[in-house]
Amino acid sequence: MAEKFEKLSRISVPELDEILGVPFKVLDDGFVRVIDYLGSDQAVVQAARVSYGKGTKKVHEDRGLIRYLMRHQHTTPFEMCELKLHVRVPMDTWRQWVRHRTASINEYSTRYSIAIDAAYTTAPGEWRLQATGNRQGSEGKLPPEQGAHFTEREAQLQSLAREVYEERLQAGIAREQARKDLPLATYTEAYWKIDLHNLLHFLKLRMEPNAQWEIRQYANIIGHEIVRRWYPLTWEAFLDYQLQAESFSRLELELLSKIVQDKWEECVKLAEEFGWLKRRDGRLVRNRERLEFEEKLARLGIQPPWKEEE
Amino acid sequence: MAEKFEKLSRISVPELDEILGVPFKVLDDGFVRVIDYLGSDQAVVQAARVSYGKGTKKVHEDRGLIRYLMRHQHTTPFEMCELKLHVRVPMDTWRQWVRHRTASINEYSTRYSIAIDAAYTTAPGEWRLQATGNRQGSEGKLPPEQGAHFTEREAQLQSLAREVYEERLQAGIAREQARKDLPLATYTEAYWKIDLHNLLHFLKLRMEPNAQWEIRQYANIIGHEIVRRWYPLTWEAFLDYQLQAESFSRLELELLSKIVQDKWEECVKLAEEFGWLKRRDGRLVRNRERLEFEEKLARLGIQPPWKEEE
Amino acid sequence: MAEKFEKLSRISVPELDEILGVPFKVLDDGFVRVIDYLGSDQAVVQAARVSYGKGTKKVHEDRGLIRYLMRHQHTTPFEMCELKLHVRVPMDTWRQWVRHRTASINEYSTRYSIAIDAAYTTAPGEWRLQATGNRQGSEGKLPPEQGAHFTEREAQLQSLAREVYEERLQAGIAREQARKDLPLATYTEAYWKIDLHNLLHFLKLRMEPNAQWEIRQYANIIGHEIVRRWYPLTWEAFLDYQLQAESFSRLELELLSKIVQDKWEECVKLAEEFGWLKRRDGRLVRNRERLEFEEKLARLGIQPPWKEEE
Amino acid sequence: MAEKFEKLSRISVPELDEILGVPFKVLDDGFVRVIDYLGSDQAVVQAARVSYGKGTKKVHEDRGLIRYLMRHQHTTPFEMCELKLHVRVPMDTWRQWVRHRTASINEYSTRYSIAIDAAYTTAPGEWRLQATGNRQGSEGKLPPEQGAHFTEREAQLQSLAREVYEERLQAGIAREQARKDLPLATYTEAYWKIDLHNLLHFLKLRMEPNAQWEIRQYANIIGHEIVRRWYPLTWEAFLDYQLQAESFSRLELELLSKIVQDKWEECVKLAEEFGWLKRRDGRLVRNRERLEFEEKLARLGIQPPWKEEE
Repeated sequence: MAEKFEKLSRISVPELDEILGVPFKVLDDGFVRVIDYLGSDQAVVQAARVSYGKGTKKVHEDRGLIRYLMRHQHTTPFEMCELKLHVRVPMDTWRQWVRHRTASINEYSTRYSIAIDAAYTTAPGEWRLQATGNRQGSEGKLPPEQGAHFTEREAQLQSLAREVYEERLQAGIAREQARKDLPLATYTEAYWKIDLHNLLHFLKLRMEPNAQWEIRQYANIIGHEIVRRWYPLTWEAFLDYQLQAESFSRLELELLSKIVQDKWEECVKLAEEFGWLKRRDGRLVRNRERLEFEEKLARLGIQPPWKEEE
Repeated sequence: MAEKFEKLSRISVPELDEILGVPFKVLDDGFVRVIDYLGSDQAVVQAARVSYGKGTKKVHEDRGLIRYLMRHQHTTPFEMCELKLHVRVPMDTWRQWVRHRTASINEYSTRYSIAIDAAYTTAPGEWRLQATGNRQGSEGKLPPEQGAHFTEREAQLQSLAREVYEERLQAGIAREQARKDLPLATYTEAYWKIDLHNLLHFLKLRMEPNAQWEIRQYANIIGHEIVRRWYPLTWEAFLDYQLQAESFSRLELELLSKIVQDKWEECVKLAEEFGWLKRRDGRLVRNRERLEFEEKLARLGIQPPWKEEE
Repeated sequence: MAEKFEKLSRISVPELDEILGVPFKVLDDGFVRVIDYLGSDQAVVQAARVSYGKGTKKVHEDRGLIRYLMRHQHTTPFEMCELKLHVRVPMDTWRQWVRHRTASINEYSTRYSIAIDAAYTTAPGEWRLQATGNRQGSEGKLPPEQGAHFTEREAQLQSLAREVYEERLQAGIAREQARKDLPLATYTEAYWKIDLHNLLHFLKLRMEPNAQWEIRQYANIIGHEIVRRWYPLTWEAFLDYQLQAESFSRLELELLSKIVQDKWEECVKLAEEFGWLKRRDGRLVRNRERLEFEEKLARLGIQPPWKEEE
Repeated sequence: MAEKFEKLSRISVPELDEILGVPFKVLDDGFVRVIDYLGSDQAVVQAARVSYGKGTKKVHEDRGLIRYLMRHQHTTPFEMCELKLHVRVPMDTWRQWVRHRTASINEYSTRYSIAIDAAYTTAPGEWRLQATGNRQGSEGKLPPEQGAHFTEREAQLQSLAREVYEERLQAGIAREQARKDLPLATYTEAYWKIDLHNLLHFLKLRMEPNAQWEIRQYANIIGHEIVRRWYPLTWEAFLDYQLQAESFSRLELELLSKIVQDKWEECVKLAEEFGWLKRRDGRLVRNRERLEFEEKLARLGIQPPWKEEE
């Protein structure tokens, strides 16, 4: 151990210290608060450099190293950082949230304490319609005049549910049983701790348009308000190499290759072989994989070769 | 590689094959079904023997080896086995279940499909009272005459909740939003896969008297009907070394040592030092740790030395 | 529970049953053997359908569903399958292998038994040269005439190490200590069990050209000989959407968009802004991110706009 | 959200801040240094209180709550704390260390950099003998005069190994291959981050007498020098309820119950039924489970009823 080690001070991030404990409001009565954290961009770099040994300190500068790690999915240095949040979330949303199994959780116990007296409510203009293309999404909204009815019915149901709950408690029924008919919209609270690698994975899944609107509101706050402040370099790299990146499958690459080489006929022929261009009554049958590819082409400013024939 | 390997056949357990797919009923409308499994008592032994090398095959016989592994918490051979279940559970119970993070889960999606039209109901004689000693438990029941009122109110609430849910769907509201006020008692279904080590940990926590009554019904079925058939030797060892074993803390061991050596006064003095024998108005103040120790003594057939003074 | 459930039979894969227990040889004295497995392509589909509910059974056919799951990273159904292998691997390679933390492992214990008397040896023509571009890779080989010297030195060293080891055992020195100077090339054996989702992740990282040659030999066998037989549909989808897919970063997409729209000057300008086109003495300075993009362009059959200027 | 939240400051532990970065020496050339940490005893309490709701703040004081959590294996609040260490460890010991899969690791890469030029050496008086009772342990030592020979041979072997390694590097052989015959005793370095719950589990397994001597030295430093400073209350509770606690199996409890009730004959009869008292030539045959029970009895100051007959 020839090396001399200096005494260290803890890594801290003043931008994050400033908002420690301060709630960011989400939905009508939810919030996200940072309770504590471990690490920073600098800690990611520090951990990565253990792997690369002493000799490399000058070669990469921090930003370049972080971008390299993110681009090549060298994920372990990002695991070296932790974020501890206090969140208040409707149970319905929480059901999705807890499916991320790599986090540590302490949730408010309705066996031990009386359930939080608040449920997530829906304004007349906020009733979303079932998506037609995507069986698990929503698109558009009910007109507020029509929504008003459902908002009223919601209030009626939530109020009865609370009334029944409190009636049970009054009669001495155990809290663990009294709660059984609370609506899924009832708020719960929890401490939620996760490392940065797994947090980014959570954000990637929950910030994307397919995620349910409610959990997206939480993910956006955590990403744009917290991680951005905490890890400016990692956040930028995450946006560039993950959130705003695009993966092309083997099939898509083959088609794209034909397109960029102006071999449109070969491209169409290939797409037919893939089964993407089936027709019924002369019109292209809906094919999910083809539609996804067309969206990627649109981002590149390209028309698919089969478009004109439609 | 001097060694010759023989072709293998898959390990199977005829007792479990017999009940594959057959539902065990739990609660009023729930169930547990075995979908598939990997391994057996023999597979535990087989994996353990990799660690110990060839030379030891005759030394231990299977039962002894399994008991040794269980006793000494050599847990990795038990990880070599997997159980895949199909379960139907009230969401309220499922909320506790999913906190076991080492399992794989595919749950019925109420974003994608219409919520299951069944909620867990409570018979008039099944309303449990809040425990007084334990803030998170229940003890005793409401008289059925009184319970009848709550059963009726439950039916009324569950019926309104379903009505509102279906009204929303009718109006074209997205399933992901329509479901928001379903009662926690609504049934969900899932495939749940877990390895034997983590399954036993789940059973240890969820079969114990402090676990909520509902999840205990599931745990008991999984333990007594499934694991017992699947792993007779492991199950026996689990009962002997885990479920029916008892841990004594450093403090309890010191007290027990005094008791068995008939040093009752020293024992009382020590318990006083531990702060377990505080009195108010001449009576022992409730002390949770002392009460737990007294229960362990009772199991050994011993009166605590301070009992007579009460 | 209106539904009727039929008794099930276990899912089995005859193509895999045929090779159960049969070793695939890897390196000079290593192997991979399938010991047991849980699931099949059909089990992936079965689990996915729990999430989607009954109504969807006819909508997707199996292949389409599996491809959809793989494309959209719906990973949980792939977790429903497990593979249990018996492997024999040099400890040096095993050090990389065990970094995959989601597997279950029982390794041969050299505290308990005498270390396996075999070390991985290198033929004269197999000494690889340090890569110049990639600090952690190799490229090219030493000429066999020159390699012969190192093969001889290796034999000398391995033989001394074994001699010293056995001398220690002879003197009664504890196995746990006697082993301390065995070479990293010494073979070890283990049972290794992992679910299909995590196995594919392992294969993705360990089949890629950057992975060390030795572990790649194992990964290739597991992928091409075992997973391909076990999960023909999943394997095909994995190749198309993972292994042979390509991710383009936000920066790359912007550049590609310019290229496909024939806006070459704008593309060069953008690349300059990204800092990819720095020059020294009139020549482009090596920039890793640019080189990676050039490789992706080559796959599409495109010359980068800055190429001609080099 | 009626509640008002105050801005928070980060939790810090001055006793730990004082030793941040300072290496604790272990073995001949290893060390353990704290790089950073998240949480404290107070953070454990804070997280537990989320579960219990507001009403309970005064009921338990911190020490009592932490002891309660530890005693009843309410482990999630302990997961809310993290420790990040920099360690230097022989690879042989590291092989055991990395089997704890819940930690995050960045290890020094010998593909990327030249291997650390230090191997763990053994002094003449430190050669341990193979245990006779325990196949995987050691007991007693070789006399130093005899040990001197082995220390010399070790030096000779380690020196040849390094010579061969450097010869390879000189010839341009890739680092990833050159390292293949380094002795297991070669030191490696890593950042190792783990939450407090899993750290205590690591310590429980690695501080116990059955753990190999080398890793025990690391575990003792981490426990007694670091965790004790960081978490005085948790550490005390860990010692009382985990490390110095003792589990009695169902069988042991039945026997103990007979003993404390002075039913010695019944106790002997029961032990016979358990198969613990088999005799050969009039002497008790070695039975591991019986021996373990006798040790527990000794700790209580009790002679086993069958002792006199031996």
